[in-house]
Amino acid sequence: MTEKLQPNQQMKILTPPEGVDRLHPQPGDLFKGNPVNLELLQALEGKSIVGVRDLTREAVIELCKLAAILEQFEIAPYHILDGKIVTTAFFEASTRTRLSFESAVQRLGGRILSIPEGGVTGVKKGESLQDIGQMFNAYCDLVIMRHTDTESVQQIREHLRVPLINAGNGSGEHPTQALADWYALLKWRPSLAETGPTDPEDQLRMGILGTPGSMRAVKSFLLMSLLFQSKIREVTVISEYADPFGADVTEHLEKAGIKYSVTNDIQETLPNLDVIYMNSIAFLGDSYKSLDSRYKLDKDSALKEDAVILHPLARLDELHTNLDETRHNLYFSQAHGAVFVRQALLASVFGRLDRLPEAFSKGGFQA
Amino acid sequence: MTEKLQPNQQMKILTPPEGVDRLHPQPGDLFKGNPVNLELLQALEGKSIVGVRDLTREAVIELCKLAAILEQFEIAPYHILDGKIVTTAFFEASTRTRLSFESAVQRLGGRILSIPEGGVTGVKKGESLQDIGQMFNAYCDLVIMRHTDTESVQQIREHLRVPLINAGNGSGEHPTQALADWYALLKWRPSLAETGPTDPEDQLRMGILGTPGSMRAVKSFLLMSLLFQSKIREVTVISEYADPFGADVTEHLEKAGIKYSVTNDIQETLPNLDVIYMNSIAFLGDSYKSLDSRYKLDKDSALKEDAVILHPLARLDELHTNLDETRHNLYFSQAHGAVFVRQALLASVFGRLDRLPEAFSKGGFQA
Amino acid sequence: MTEKLQPNQQMKILTPPEGVDRLHPQPGDLFKGNPVNLELLQALEGKSIVGVRDLTREAVIELCKLAAILEQFEIAPYHILDGKIVTTAFFEASTRTRLSFESAVQRLGGRILSIPEGGVTGVKKGESLQDIGQMFNAYCDLVIMRHTDTESVQQIREHLRVPLINAGNGSGEHPTQALADWYALLKWRPSLAETGPTDPEDQLRMGILGTPGSMRAVKSFLLMSLLFQSKIREVTVISEYADPFGADVTEHLEKAGIKYSVTNDIQETLPNLDVIYMNSIAFLGDSYKSLDSRYKLDKDSALKEDAVILHPLARLDELHTNLDETRHNLYFSQAHGAVFVRQALLASVFGRLDRLPEAFSKGGFQA
Repeated sequence: MTEKLQPNQQMKILTPPEGVDRLHPQPGDLFKGNPVNLELLQALEGKSIVGVRDLTREAVIELCKLAAILEQFEIAPYHILDGKIVTTAFFEASTRTRLSFESAVQRLGGRILSIPEGGVTGVKKGESLQDIGQMFNAYCDLVIMRHTDTESVQQIREHLRVPLINAGNGSGEHPTQALADWYALLKWRPSLAETGPTDPEDQLRMGILGTPGSMRAVKSFLLMSLLFQSKIREVTVISEYADPFGADVTEHLEKAGIKYSVTNDIQETLPNLDVIYMNSIAFLGDSYKSLDSRYKLDKDSALKEDAVILHPLARLDELHTNLDETRHNLYFSQAHGAVFVRQALLASVFGRLDRLPEAFSKGGFQA
Repeated sequence: MTEKLQPNQQMKILTPPEGVDRLHPQPGDLFKGNPVNLELLQALEGKSIVGVRDLTREAVIELCKLAAILEQFEIAPYHILDGKIVTTAFFEASTRTRLSFESAVQRLGGRILSIPEGGVTGVKKGESLQDIGQMFNAYCDLVIMRHTDTESVQQIREHLRVPLINAGNGSGEHPTQALADWYALLKWRPSLAETGPTDPEDQLRMGILGTPGSMRAVKSFLLMSLLFQSKIREVTVISEYADPFGADVTEHLEKAGIKYSVTNDIQETLPNLDVIYMNSIAFLGDSYKSLDSRYKLDKDSALKEDAVILHPLARLDELHTNLDETRHNLYFSQAHGAVFVRQALLASVFGRLDRLPEAFSKGGFQA
Repeated sequence: MTEKLQPNQQMKILTPPEGVDRLHPQPGDLFKGNPVNLELLQALEGKSIVGVRDLTREAVIELCKLAAILEQFEIAPYHILDGKIVTTAFFEASTRTRLSFESAVQRLGGRILSIPEGGVTGVKKGESLQDIGQMFNAYCDLVIMRHTDTESVQQIREHLRVPLINAGNGSGEHPTQALADWYALLKWRPSLAETGPTDPEDQLRMGILGTPGSMRAVKSFLLMSLLFQSKIREVTVISEYADPFGADVTEHLEKAGIKYSVTNDIQETLPNLDVIYMNSIAFLGDSYKSLDSRYKLDKDSALKEDAVILHPLARLDELHTNLDETRHNLYFSQAHGAVFVRQALLASVFGRLDRLPEAFSKGGFQA
């Protein structure tokens, strides 16, 4: 069942990137003796991924395990997505996220229709998202959209018949960022993927510097964390707001039964945390707001010795570069892995898992 | 001669899109017992398509028949345009038209050099279109250009040695939009492709809401309609201008001997029309002007029961969304088909018809 | 050793472009009886090309010889760069240079991640180039960057682990433009590639209209010319500045021992020059400045009968179009060849020379 498969002879092993690997474990640890369950991922074929709710805990784990293989072997020669066209519709510009998706699509052999800045389209002239969705049906096989408006996802889906991956909608969600976050966590501590009861001593104390209610990446991270709640002892949100969650998220927290608290005192909280999640910008109504200047981290911050920091870059000065060379830096691993977990998701949504090399389709392999 | 060919086994049938097909006939009706004459299309190899005058009635029909096949079968696996590079030079930005062409090129396996906004090129610095044409010769195998200046096409062709497809030049032409328009009409009423005398009762009464003299899409639609004049009883232009045609178009109308009239009374005219063509913007000198607010259509407009509306989207409020679910809606079919008729044109201009699946090259086939 | 190799049967000969070839020799002359030394080019695998100093005279010659083959035969069917992704990061917009590189990559079968205008990325939000370099490691296999800041190259390389090709950094360098310049010169006069002593009568008198110290293309051209100093009798810089070189370039000139002078009198100098290099813009601090209006050339300028003009277009009015149809026009050949010499460089840096058709790998061939 945990048969050790070898990559086939044509498969080229990718040289591990120096920076990240010096600090953190290899992705290989994630699927050691634990083959990828491709059958489970086949259920994602043709599905839209609008929020974390479109994924199960099992799907997250299998996507991350598949990503871990894709991070270690050269997949390009297999042209998994040959003939498929993806539109990257960034009505809100974001070069980093757009390139991450466009890299994932192209590494698998798919093609891109790029809208780097939605402001120059018919949208500027007043065209509705409903009509734009209608147009996309003929042009492409999948749409990846980012938009400043939270309602945008619902609007474009009225006429859209191809799958949609939400790459951030206003103060809504950003589910593939959450996948990248948890891929980094699972590589860092593979035991998070295990089922069964967890010793309270091994459970993580998570701290979130930010406002889940108005920061979509933070919200999606929090919602995905709920899928792994048996591994989490407590979530502390460090925010200047009295209610940083918003009604929607609070309901999920209550329903999940996870222990959580809110504080504005970073000094007191920081020394207890195993995982710190931070972000640089919050979406407030129609504009973005930087993180409060008190909530900054550097190498002199009172971090636990083995605490790790996640940050869905780009960063400003809230996360000092003097942390880059420390073991607290999980954010480089997080950024590096994003493209691979997106590859895993695309291969699944396109129903092209059967085109993976034979070593993959046998259920995973040992590096 | 009208032998029923079957698609070969590798050919995957595309799932027909729901929205459009619920309302209108399948593209397959267009070539039933009427194989595509690929030999006729081979004459387009290496040709520039600047205006409707670069196409014959026969070429329009064969391109539409080829488009109808491409709309029904998955062509991507054949990589028809492998190794070919197309520049989409949108010196006037238009995401919709740009993506339509870029989708057509990539679906056939070609590559794109994209200039989404010409304002950021050397043009801004004062570089001439003549020099830009010179530059394109080394970079690509075909140029698709949109420009605010009517003279732009003539200017760039001074040094350009690769074919040019005009995607809209000032108040000039937009020939591939006219192809998309007539592809929708031919799918809607395949008998329009037949030759021979037409019973006056079967001839269409066409109404154009707009100004052919200053609206390039409208002008190209009208010029292409002249190729099918035996099927048209009368063309009525509904406009606030006394002479909406301009000298150039009037000359063609006179020469064609088609019956035409001009009115500004939409109420009186509308109930007689079989086909209504409308557009949202007019090009007046250096700027665009919206359609006059009187000329708007919604489901309460006095339309003939089986009248159809064409509109080269994007639309503003001149075309109400409550028409979308009616049989008057031919504009979704028109928008959907644009990418396939552009595929047919590209395969022809590139001289790559011989790379189509064998079922195509035998002269067409039956779905 | 100079065995005449024939292209293999699959290789399609490209139709020579009319304009350029009417005026100047075929690229074939460059490698007649002089096969490409691919082994020497293999040394470029994985290397960054930041400035002219990253290339030897021998590498420049072999790259130009390889470019001459690529200019004459259709390379697209070989998919030399299949599976490779290149980011074109134009933090300073330049459509011409961006398209030249994107064409080169795609003609060889590689894929593009395009940042046409860096202003819209995280950079605008304040993200550091160091972090951007870190991000690129996961997304692509090579970065081509243009930036307004001279220090940008050094900054991005702090974390970048994939090779970088500098496409222009502030007042720094633009080495691939210099390759395009010298490719044009070597096609024009193949004997420039020969070694051994040169009769002073055959040495070139070079004139540079511009300011090497503040014009990166001019600086890179001058530095590459030093590699060919045995072929050059004198370099005259025609500038309104007393010291147009800057300390860095002066040091190289002195070290090379080449004869050079500075003048602001174009009338006196022009009649002696064999090669005139000009440019339209100078980079001064944070902004660009047009060439002084005195320094303009047209067909009435006092040019030697067989003098040639180089200009890394786009041009404004400093280079009159009435020179285009004269034998002085080497700038069209220079512009045309840029994409091929970039193909040669990319194939080398990617270590994919072994995927060239067999006729190439045997060491070159005769057209």
